[in-house]
Amino acid sequence: MTDRKQPISGEDALIARYFKPLATDPGAFNLGDDAAVLKPSGDDIVVTTDGIVEGVHFLADDPPDTVARKALRVNLSDLAAKGATPAGFVLTLALRAADDAWLTPFARGLGSDAGLFGCPLLGGDTVSTPGPLTISITAFGRVPAGKMVRRSGAKPGDRVMVTGTIGDAALGLDILKGGAAAALPDAGTRAMLIGRYRVPQPRNALAKAVRNHARAAMDVSDGLAGDLAKLCGVSGVSAVIDVPSIPLSPAAAALLARGTVDIETIVSGGDDYEVLCTVPEDSFEAFVQAAGQAGVAVSSIGVIVAGSSVPRFLDGEGREIALPRLSYSHF
Amino acid sequence: MTDRKQPISGEDALIARYFKPLATDPGAFNLGDDAAVLKPSGDDIVVTTDGIVEGVHFLADDPPDTVARKALRVNLSDLAAKGATPAGFVLTLALRAADDAWLTPFARGLGSDAGLFGCPLLGGDTVSTPGPLTISITAFGRVPAGKMVRRSGAKPGDRVMVTGTIGDAALGLDILKGGAAAALPDAGTRAMLIGRYRVPQPRNALAKAVRNHARAAMDVSDGLAGDLAKLCGVSGVSAVIDVPSIPLSPAAAALLARGTVDIETIVSGGDDYEVLCTVPEDSFEAFVQAAGQAGVAVSSIGVIVAGSSVPRFLDGEGREIALPRLSYSHF
Repeated sequence: MTDRKQPISGEDALIARYFKPLATDPGAFNLGDDAAVLKPSGDDIVVTTDGIVEGVHFLADDPPDTVARKALRVNLSDLAAKGATPAGFVLTLALRAADDAWLTPFARGLGSDAGLFGCPLLGGDTVSTPGPLTISITAFGRVPAGKMVRRSGAKPGDRVMVTGTIGDAALGLDILKGGAAAALPDAGTRAMLIGRYRVPQPRNALAKAVRNHARAAMDVSDGLAGDLAKLCGVSGVSAVIDVPSIPLSPAAAALLARGTVDIETIVSGGDDYEVLCTVPEDSFEAFVQAAGQAGVAVSSIGVIVAGSSVPRFLDGEGREIALPRLSYSHF
Repeated sequence: MTDRKQPISGEDALIARYFKPLATDPGAFNLGDDAAVLKPSGDDIVVTTDGIVEGVHFLADDPPDTVARKALRVNLSDLAAKGATPAGFVLTLALRAADDAWLTPFARGLGSDAGLFGCPLLGGDTVSTPGPLTISITAFGRVPAGKMVRRSGAKPGDRVMVTGTIGDAALGLDILKGGAAAALPDAGTRAMLIGRYRVPQPRNALAKAVRNHARAAMDVSDGLAGDLAKLCGVSGVSAVIDVPSIPLSPAAAALLARGTVDIETIVSGGDDYEVLCTVPEDSFEAFVQAAGQAGVAVSSIGVIVAGSSVPRFLDGEGREIALPRLSYSHF
């Protein structure tokens, strides 16, 4: 007769060690079950899923805590743009090996952001892969029934609004790849831009204002120009954008003024994770005020117009700027 | 002035072509938004997530339609074991290239099973990877509030029950890898076993019976012995299993009788995707009757006992069988 204690596999030990401390929600059952539970609240559950792949969405030598935070934040950004309040997430992690030196900061970064954004880990799956590290997160949010802000509601006359600044993440990636922006002399500025690439700032504080005032919304992930074209496409409208009104960081503005980078890098580069939304003129002031109270900078960059052509981007003299490549596409 | 029509990226075209036809639920918004919506029903939402990786969970030359069905069915199996009714799923697909010859049957298999199990595609993310094909699915089910069947409810005296037959998938994988089971002379039998590996048969028809009668449940994915040990571990109990009562297909029984494979391959091989549950003695008859009405074969294979040691597997003479390796672990 044996009297062996219950065995713990490498996989179970990994989950218990790194991820169980993050599973603070009662519906996660301490990650000791096959499934999690989201309790009914009468709200709609908003579901979004985004995967990130080493070498594609993040770089192999990006710090593990920033990889974790990016994986969660790209999903939080979708919830913000839909007007939803975060409720939790599940994680699928495909790893080459159970590497303590990588997993410790990864789990720390993930737990820190889960706490910061009130979005607890509910469950997950950890599998081995011979390939690049791949992290897939499905995140849940809640909105009052029927109130999710769609991409498809934009109407002619709506203001086109965007949060924060555009283009910084693309410049950060350019620096990491040794591109033109790497010539920036100031190390602090370079670090700021790299930080914008590695750790997006999802605008969850703005969710309620988006829900109350925006007619259509999405987050900018593949590039402002391409994402606006998508929003206009499903809304059956077009847009005219005043390029000088697009909010830029001082660093991006300086690089653009100096001709180090062109406007296409800024508006088509992607990884911004800002909210792009359209707001009817009569809600504009209320939206700006609500954004101010939420502590999120918003800028009016143009107007929705009738038509089915690609949104036009005009310079300070009203001349159209050609944008051959609107956004990033995987295929 | 340009008059370009709204652009469609390769990624958007891929989603529109292959996956939009599967997004039949109104909450999927035809895959034209950043998120999906699950409507409130007063039920708890059960959430499960499982990823499968080429070369780890399926083989590079497995037919694409079986890969799709396996990816969905391993998640459906979790819902069945939790007593939940399928409500939908989201998909993250990491692909090397947008290959029509692969995507066409993949989407067909996925759509066919989504229809068969009443589990519509709600959304997803398609990304490029330089590595192995990786498919991550998060599936949702509904149970009346508080009624999800946990792993942790088993009590001494409960019957240990299992659906279907055990070990066939492990033998199918053995055949595909050219192992001992490949010596089976009958091509039809070999094909049946390979089919059990490639396309699990999740027991969703049994969900209501599990919910009504089982005290603890999980699905068998990593191996009967190891998964039972996990269930006992979180329930704070042990178990005694009568090995001759473990349901085997005629093929598995013949291979075992002939000594071509040993019992460890059968009970520790995994990929079974059968429901393992514990049922109090006074619910046993009602459970068997409900299973019969649902058309799912169930077998009583042992009993839960007090204690914290690993479940014991006894042969026909009551002697313990040593099982050095209880189940598959990724790390």
